[in-house]
Amino acid sequence: MGRWEPDARGRLGAAALELYLERGYEQTTVADIAERAGVTARTFFRHFADKREVLFAGGAGFEAHVVAALDAVPASATPLTAAVRALEASAELLIDHDFSRKRFAVIAANAELHERELIKLASLSTALAEGLRRRGVDEPAASLAAETGVALFRVAFARWVAEGETAELDELLRDSLGELTQLTRRTTAGRRR
Amino acid sequence: MGRWEPDARGRLGAAALELYLERGYEQTTVADIAERAGVTARTFFRHFADKREVLFAGGAGFEAHVVAALDAVPASATPLTAAVRALEASAELLIDHDFSRKRFAVIAANAELHERELIKLASLSTALAEGLRRRGVDEPAASLAAETGVALFRVAFARWVAEGETAELDELLRDSLGELTQLTRRTTAGRRR
Repeated sequence: MGRWEPDARGRLGAAALELYLERGYEQTTVADIAERAGVTARTFFRHFADKREVLFAGGAGFEAHVVAALDAVPASATPLTAAVRALEASAELLIDHDFSRKRFAVIAANAELHERELIKLASLSTALAEGLRRRGVDEPAASLAAETGVALFRVAFARWVAEGETAELDELLRDSLGELTQLTRRTTAGRRR
Repeated sequence: MGRWEPDARGRLGAAALELYLERGYEQTTVADIAERAGVTARTFFRHFADKREVLFAGGAGFEAHVVAALDAVPASATPLTAAVRALEASAELLIDHDFSRKRFAVIAANAELHERELIKLASLSTALAEGLRRRGVDEPAASLAAETGVALFRVAFARWVAEGETAELDELLRDSLGELTQLTRRTTAGRRR
């Protein structure tokens, strides 16, 4: 492959994930990634600051996208519906199922990467709670809806990247909300007995 | 105060939190903590491995306590009730409201400490999901109940340590579950319209 092909970024991302899975994240160098992608290390650094950024480059855009989606949810939506609809919009960014699967496996295998992912999700929850308060939702409902929305997202995402799953992420998120609704009903019913 | 008083550990913990709040965590040394507590640095190291451990020493015991409480919840309890009851048992360990308040403020102000706290909570969620599967709860209900339980715990804990809050942690956890149940009902009602 030529060095200056326009999809160098995509090839670098795919090459990095292959190598992280084959050799481990720690054992992979930027030189290895560039070689596998058929470009120079200099080309790598035009697209990513370091090998970690290959996995997290989309992070800031992701949160902004979800918060913008929240602001666009009709005011009539209840807090938890609004949070879940905003998170459903993330499916528009996570279109590469194969990349997401591999990324999930790499992150699960490395403590430092896992920490970073947890921080990203905690930040997302904080941003969603702020967005809900801007919509006039009081505390603790805003924090509860945001934290619960992110909890649903975590479960739906883990299902989405599981072997053999064919449903889309936004469907799995709506499913998870439906199942949580059932769980809370059973909980209340259990308390009445 | 004498150097070998039996409550050296408690005084060291209180002194450390005071200093972390006054000067910042990064700016506080073990020597400062020992001096404030009226003991030697050597005494500090008999109780804690380093200044971070003052904040996280209870972590492993905390998770084990919650998992043991989950195992003790009657089999008839629904998954989400079981998760919340297990987390309510954590209130038995978090008896020092003042310590918890100060600890929360210190952790919120420091990125590294915040990361560690997030990892602890992620580990707690994983342990709760495993415990629920041992009780015969299928996926995704086990993960959903565990993630939601921890989300409720985070919200309840933040309320508990807030200025002026007088309710107990276990009450706030039950309250949060009740409010979530309301939120999911309103969500379902909203969808029917």
